[in-house]
Amino acid sequence: MTFTAADPDFEVRVRASFARQGIMRLINASIVRVSPGAVEIELPFRDDLTQQHGYFHAGITSTIADSAGGYAAFTLFPATSSVLTVEFKVNLVAPADGEKLVARGRVKKHGRTLTVCELEVAAVKDGRERACAYGLQTLICLEGVADGRRPQG
Amino acid sequence: MTFTAADPDFEVRVRASFARQGIMRLINASIVRVSPGAVEIELPFRDDLTQQHGYFHAGITSTIADSAGGYAAFTLFPATSSVLTVEFKVNLVAPADGEKLVARGRVKKHGRTLTVCELEVAAVKDGRERACAYGLQTLICLEGVADGRRPQG
Amino acid sequence: MTFTAADPDFEVRVRASFARQGIMRLINASIVRVSPGAVEIELPFRDDLTQQHGYFHAGITSTIADSAGGYAAFTLFPATSSVLTVEFKVNLVAPADGEKLVARGRVKKHGRTLTVCELEVAAVKDGRERACAYGLQTLICLEGVADGRRPQG
Amino acid sequence: MTFTAADPDFEVRVRASFARQGIMRLINASIVRVSPGAVEIELPFRDDLTQQHGYFHAGITSTIADSAGGYAAFTLFPATSSVLTVEFKVNLVAPADGEKLVARGRVKKHGRTLTVCELEVAAVKDGRERACAYGLQTLICLEGVADGRRPQG
Repeated sequence: MTFTAADPDFEVRVRASFARQGIMRLINASIVRVSPGAVEIELPFRDDLTQQHGYFHAGITSTIADSAGGYAAFTLFPATSSVLTVEFKVNLVAPADGEKLVARGRVKKHGRTLTVCELEVAAVKDGRERACAYGLQTLICLEGVADGRRPQG
Repeated sequence: MTFTAADPDFEVRVRASFARQGIMRLINASIVRVSPGAVEIELPFRDDLTQQHGYFHAGITSTIADSAGGYAAFTLFPATSSVLTVEFKVNLVAPADGEKLVARGRVKKHGRTLTVCELEVAAVKDGRERACAYGLQTLICLEGVADGRRPQG
Repeated sequence: MTFTAADPDFEVRVRASFARQGIMRLINASIVRVSPGAVEIELPFRDDLTQQHGYFHAGITSTIADSAGGYAAFTLFPATSSVLTVEFKVNLVAPADGEKLVARGRVKKHGRTLTVCELEVAAVKDGRERACAYGLQTLICLEGVADGRRPQG
Repeated sequence: MTFTAADPDFEVRVRASFARQGIMRLINASIVRVSPGAVEIELPFRDDLTQQHGYFHAGITSTIADSAGGYAAFTLFPATSSVLTVEFKVNLVAPADGEKLVARGRVKKHGRTLTVCELEVAAVKDGRERACAYGLQTLICLEGVADGRRPQG
């Protein structure tokens, strides 16, 4: 599937939003590719990202998958809008064992209100990629609601 | 539903495994209740756990939900065994906005190989709880495989 | 959770919509309880509803679960509206083996656009209920779009 | 992904099992392609397969998707084994509106105990295919348990 982004500045908008996700700095994830309907995020291994067996925790695998899918959808949204995850589901098909993870989100269906993405996370070990998670995700577009920090109160 | 743990030392075993999850220390989550078939995890708010609007990131909500469900299942597993998440699904029904999150995992069906848990995460704001996520999760029991760090190589 | 239906005629509206679902007549499902935010559907066993081992097919279990949740949400919708399933997930925790199935849909979160339901299906065998499926479902409210057959063509 | 079936008679075995699914006869679904790791099922439109707006019911869309994925997995299973659906999730991305549905199940990860499939259902209208559902599914292999009707009682 190929998509066209309605907002020509989609990449700047996506990268600016990603930069506001405090969690991405904490875990040291970076957004490595942004194209209309597709986003890729990488995460180097660290011992403080692990579950009990020393692999990446399923929740961390899901965290970068969720952001990859959310921003894949967001590339197609209007300039003034926000994206929220409605729900997602992941199957953890192999241990997330490697020197880094690569999460890819791809839009499968883009609607005005709801967008559906497929998610895939691979573990890279000794330079070889191996799928460790597959997912499906539903996003909602809040049109007219600018992305950014909400006022606290 | 009430369950009986086959292993009388289930709580020690669960807490020891939780202590090996590097990610829980990084985000400062703590396991606050452990009973047969049910586990509760708390996570205080920090700015480095957020998504782009300043709320807890959906992936972090999912991380503690996944561990709560995984350890709820693990309470019922044999003394020498490991738990892995097969898959989970979460619906994010409200912004995870509050001074802390409370994730609860509860076993709905315990089988020899597969166990199914329901997940619920509430955000506590000004002392009041409000549900922000519901989920369902499938866990697998690796019988005879001791929990613990896997040899690297 | 208790809900109040905005439309006092919610039950008539739900039952009329259920009566338009051709598949419910084909499989002989009936709607047995309708209350604000909750609906129950029953389905007697027939050999032509089975999978390869002679139990109810997972898809049929899901069919009545989907309708139960969809109509549970629909009870809370405005008088002039339609309901569509956005997505659902089911865990099939035991064989759907019995003389009938009972599917229950219950609203967990009611929003203006999206509503989330939990689904549960029990098999009744020799008069005893046993859970065979748990699910979570997202519904969308199409406000102002009257329920009913769409013009063909 | 390409797979090799361990059992050379996988197609006969899959078609025989499909023929035992009473529900497939009731709705008039047929299995149109069987290859290692992939199965396709077709379902012509009938008015008694519909939801309230006159389209295929989401549960029926799911029923053929579930069988397509289940049998895609079953192609890779040993000669003497059974397949059960552990869980599945579907996103209904467009009305299932057309003269027939085509459901495709494809194995994404084949394990000894658990297999994960992706599901896709398209509605064919005026000869053109349009995706109406995407899903993910987990199957379990019961090794040594022959497929077939279970003794009643």
